[in-house]
Amino acid sequence: MISIKFVTVGNLKESYLREAAAEYEKRLGGFCHYESVCLKEEKLPDSPSASEIDSALKKESVKILAELSPRAYKIAMCVEGKQMSSEALAKKIDAISNTTGEICFVIGSSHGLDETVKRACDMRLSVSELTFPHQLMRVILLEAVYRALNINKGTKYHK
Amino acid sequence: MISIKFVTVGNLKESYLREAAAEYEKRLGGFCHYESVCLKEEKLPDSPSASEIDSALKKESVKILAELSPRAYKIAMCVEGKQMSSEALAKKIDAISNTTGEICFVIGSSHGLDETVKRACDMRLSVSELTFPHQLMRVILLEAVYRALNINKGTKYHK
Repeated sequence: MISIKFVTVGNLKESYLREAAAEYEKRLGGFCHYESVCLKEEKLPDSPSASEIDSALKKESVKILAELSPRAYKIAMCVEGKQMSSEALAKKIDAISNTTGEICFVIGSSHGLDETVKRACDMRLSVSELTFPHQLMRVILLEAVYRALNINKGTKYHK
Repeated sequence: MISIKFVTVGNLKESYLREAAAEYEKRLGGFCHYESVCLKEEKLPDSPSASEIDSALKKESVKILAELSPRAYKIAMCVEGKQMSSEALAKKIDAISNTTGEICFVIGSSHGLDETVKRACDMRLSVSELTFPHQLMRVILLEAVYRALNINKGTKYHK
């Protein structure tokens, strides 16, 4: 069974997002060894400067890098990343499941990810050209991964 | 103030999706005249044939077409549509707000939309190459529209 780890930054504030994530995490249990780590988001003033954002991302990157297993295939979520169909993501996950057997998805804070994290990852994945709140992105990615695992298992979830 | 109407098919089954949609619909009220219509999804057997799906989509299309105002700029959500950045979607909505002042977004059922609906629309919009449940898509699109309206109003929501 493949191991999948979500490394995220910032707690889910809205109860409906927490419920959605919990539901998908429960369902994922039947398909993989699922683990998630939620790191603390660095505090920023209301209108942060570019250098304040940069410094916060750098601090977050140290904590993120410490959570990435060297063996795992590491995927950084970023808007400039490669987009994939659900079938292509399923194939990618299947291929990893036959090699290292471990995947780590990384979702940054509201200002994204520091370059050091992106460079430490094996792939940059994008869901959309649209921008989404990183908290909703967690639910979107959980759904995408759940669908991909269903495709690989041949269930009816993905018609 | 621009009028925005969501025409969707099938009730939101999960409570967290209903809460998420309600939250965004409440917020949208400050930015536009928002209206939503949720049409009944046609019942299908567990493993429907292509012609059964086709027939259900045709029946749904009649109800959808009846909800589209002739004046409105009509946008069909489909995976083969054009993707846009949040800024481009904001510009598009701004341009419509200066012409007809009415937009209608159409999200089909789990099997999508009949071709007659797509042809009746002015544009086909895609959020992602990934497939998402149409129910989650409603929340994703509500967030995308809310963000676009914030961009046009110059708020801090979109950093």
